[in-house]
Amino acid sequence: MDLQRIGALIRDIPDFPKKGILFKDIFPLFQDPIAVEMVITHIVNHINTTIDKKVDVIVGLDARGFLFGPLVAMRLGAAFAPVRKAGKLPGEVTQVAYVKEYGTDVFEMQQDSVKPGQNVVIVDDLIATGGSAAGAQQLVEKLGGNVLEFIFLIELEFLKGKDVLNAPIYSMIKA
Amino acid sequence: MDLQRIGALIRDIPDFPKKGILFKDIFPLFQDPIAVEMVITHIVNHINTTIDKKVDVIVGLDARGFLFGPLVAMRLGAAFAPVRKAGKLPGEVTQVAYVKEYGTDVFEMQQDSVKPGQNVVIVDDLIATGGSAAGAQQLVEKLGGNVLEFIFLIELEFLKGKDVLNAPIYSMIKA
Repeated sequence: MDLQRIGALIRDIPDFPKKGILFKDIFPLFQDPIAVEMVITHIVNHINTTIDKKVDVIVGLDARGFLFGPLVAMRLGAAFAPVRKAGKLPGEVTQVAYVKEYGTDVFEMQQDSVKPGQNVVIVDDLIATGGSAAGAQQLVEKLGGNVLEFIFLIELEFLKGKDVLNAPIYSMIKA
Repeated sequence: MDLQRIGALIRDIPDFPKKGILFKDIFPLFQDPIAVEMVITHIVNHINTTIDKKVDVIVGLDARGFLFGPLVAMRLGAAFAPVRKAGKLPGEVTQVAYVKEYGTDVFEMQQDSVKPGQNVVIVDDLIATGGSAAGAQQLVEKLGGNVLEFIFLIELEFLKGKDVLNAPIYSMIKA
């Protein structure tokens, strides 16, 4: 029932950002604080009941992963660490190139944002082809972290993004 | 005392993003969930004790305003609405041009993200010259919203950003 209320708040926008793409707009969800509360409670409950290790760090991808990541991290008492495009994060950083729909791009994390041996869950709003999530996993592993799971609000199953990730994935809504 | 703990977690990075700029890095704060909790509690307490109207919407600027905005909104039971650069938000949007350090840029909000007459608080991590915050205020007002206050974690007082905003500002840390 919760998932129905949440699903109804995700808006399909045709032809965005370009013709032929049906964009999943999650911002209507953020107009309803009870629905956001349900999402966070659902994710935290999923983590607490299915992951038997302590989660040290929630990693979120710029920009929509920043909306959920700190909420989940705070609820767990975990750190939050960002993944951003090259040039956005100050100080010492680690880089990886990741595959986009056309060509590649470069992601960075701050060198001290995940410590060797820490257990990490990576969150984002949506998984499509999985390229950016795979890039985030590579970064966490370069820093010595251990990716326990990926959590997404929405999974576009027909794009099979799951297949490019080397850790379990959990998605609340499949589309 | 809380403010000292928080201030100590903001890292100065010289010459980022370019030579001569001392960048305030807030991400070390997010490694410490107790410190983030203190920031959110401080902001919510400030709102509850000094603003005599009900806050309907927290508006946050992409990308670092996305880290704090939903946490504050959830705590207040308010909506969260994003401001992003042109082309990032799907659906019907409203635009304004705003002044940056060199030249101008365009911000957008979704048309339905603030309703006429709603009371809004705008949050961001830092105020420098105030150009982006002023742009966010113009957008909220174009949508018919009423900006009650701006809240920043850090204010670079010497840049006098406060002077370009037409609403009260509250900053936790002055630098």
